Amino acid sequence: MIQLPDILNGDRRQLAKAVTLIESTTKEDRKKAKKLLASLPENPNAIRLGISGVPGVGKSTFVEGLGQHITKTLNKKVAVLTIDPTSPISGGSLLGDKTRMEVLAAEEKAFIRPSPTKEHLGGVSATTKELILLFEAAGYDYIIIETVGVGQSEFEARNMVDLFLWLTIPNTGDGLQAIKKGLLELIDIAVVNKTDLFSETDVNLKLQNLGSIFSSHSRKPIVSKINSLNIESFKELYNQIKTHYDKNKAAIKSQRQEQLQVWKKQLLEKEILASLNYTELLEKKISETKDQSISELFSYLQK
Amino acid sequence: MIQLPDILNGDRRQLAKAVTLIESTTKEDRKKAKKLLASLPENPNAIRLGISGVPGVGKSTFVEGLGQHITKTLNKKVAVLTIDPTSPISGGSLLGDKTRMEVLAAEEKAFIRPSPTKEHLGGVSATTKELILLFEAAGYDYIIIETVGVGQSEFEARNMVDLFLWLTIPNTGDGLQAIKKGLLELIDIAVVNKTDLFSETDVNLKLQNLGSIFSSHSRKPIVSKINSLNIESFKELYNQIKTHYDKNKAAIKSQRQEQLQVWKKQLLEKEILASLNYTELLEKKISETKDQSISELFSYLQK
Repeated sequence: MIQLPDILNGDRRQLAKAVTLIESTTKEDRKKAKKLLASLPENPNAIRLGISGVPGVGKSTFVEGLGQHITKTLNKKVAVLTIDPTSPISGGSLLGDKTRMEVLAAEEKAFIRPSPTKEHLGGVSATTKELILLFEAAGYDYIIIETVGVGQSEFEARNMVDLFLWLTIPNTGDGLQAIKKGLLELIDIAVVNKTDLFSETDVNLKLQNLGSIFSSHSRKPIVSKINSLNIESFKELYNQIKTHYDKNKAAIKSQRQEQLQVWKKQLLEKEILASLNYTELLEKKISETKDQSISELFSYLQK
Repeated sequence: MIQLPDILNGDRRQLAKAVTLIESTTKEDRKKAKKLLASLPENPNAIRLGISGVPGVGKSTFVEGLGQHITKTLNKKVAVLTIDPTSPISGGSLLGDKTRMEVLAAEEKAFIRPSPTKEHLGGVSATTKELILLFEAAGYDYIIIETVGVGQSEFEARNMVDLFLWLTIPNTGDGLQAIKKGLLELIDIAVVNKTDLFSETDVNLKLQNLGSIFSSHSRKPIVSKINSLNIESFKELYNQIKTHYDKNKAAIKSQRQEQLQVWKKQLLEKEILASLNYTELLEKKISETKDQSISELFSYLQK
């Protein structure tokens, strides 16, 4: 049995058990999970950061660097969660490999949670939102939501974080890709990564390029650069993120209110549909009518 | 009372009444509409065409020209329906103005249906699908679904037509816009319109441009051009469309099967949710919990 005081004290074993409980899909575990979630105090001071970028852009190394800055330099706690919708589909996972962040994983003040191995009732993002509450209650100051950078995961992540950070590298067409996928409107902070591997000219060209893409944006994103292998360089970037956060604090507060309302509605929808046995009913009717023509179906619907 | 034989004979007054009935949202009318729809024979030979493009690209003039080719030259019947999701929101409508197509509207073999004035239970596109059945049963050979070219309407249209036609003009960035909105994958036929207003060089540049955008596409779209003011020029374009249709007949047939399954599922979902009073239940619970914190909501969900 998970004890609330252990969670509030940040007991890692109990936290891991709570994560497993929240990710479980059995009816009994869901009941226990809801009870646990109902008991968690809120921690409104935690900062929720989304981090995205196409595969190969260096997300793991970046998160490891940022995470070390948070734990070692700032002496704060960080939880790294992932949204990886490829995981339940392909069996394999693009992210979620704990060993990717070996140094950070060994930190006492860091908790890295690989992506869930199977899809939760109501989607991966529903579970992730619950995990955010858990880690915030356990005293984690920063929650980093990492996405695979393909598909819908960025949109899901955007709806649960305060600031959304997008990683890129010079000499790539990922800016156009991001436009195509409608990602640009999500971004608060764009960071050109791996500056050690490219010339200053290439890095500056990318920064200019991003600057011009963002110039007309409502969200007024900031643009920065980093060499993620150099932990020292996270100091400046962190300060930029923090300044941006402080400047937009009022907007972020009302954004959280909106995110909360959306989430509450999703929880109620799921609950009502489950209580009405909607899925079973729909499946039954689909199978009953599967060979019907459309006019036969309209006839069936009159009954 | 609408008589089925009148519909099958293509009686325009009765057809107009049937359209009004299908668009009605009252419970009693929905019951009558379902009864009518259950009685309609299918007409699998009708061709369903979607037509899209940003405002200003000349959609109305194009549809009027194509419609006249269908009614006068081919001696066939055409129904023009619109999907205009802006209409219920703004009160005003981007499309749906019957007077836009004065010549075609006066044709005995054409029926132009302005977009519905208010949102139907389950969305504009649900009504439009039912109208397609109605006009096909009434002997219409071609159904043209026109969209406003903004927002989600293209995706809705794509799911109910056999071929999707996208209009553009030279010297514009609408190709990039279309990429941004994810429209490119929907297109079967791209047509450069208003060739009379641009130089041959500009027109050819646009054709080349489209050709290169489409070169890697799974749907293998065709690219063409037209001066919509010259009715004669629709002969060639029509033949290109027809050839493309004939060539893809097997794929279109299985696409229709898929569209039918999706539609049947949507109808069943709507029916079940209505029978369970889902919307009322959800609204009640949202209002009951609107001031609750997330932990209070989790507590509420345990009951």
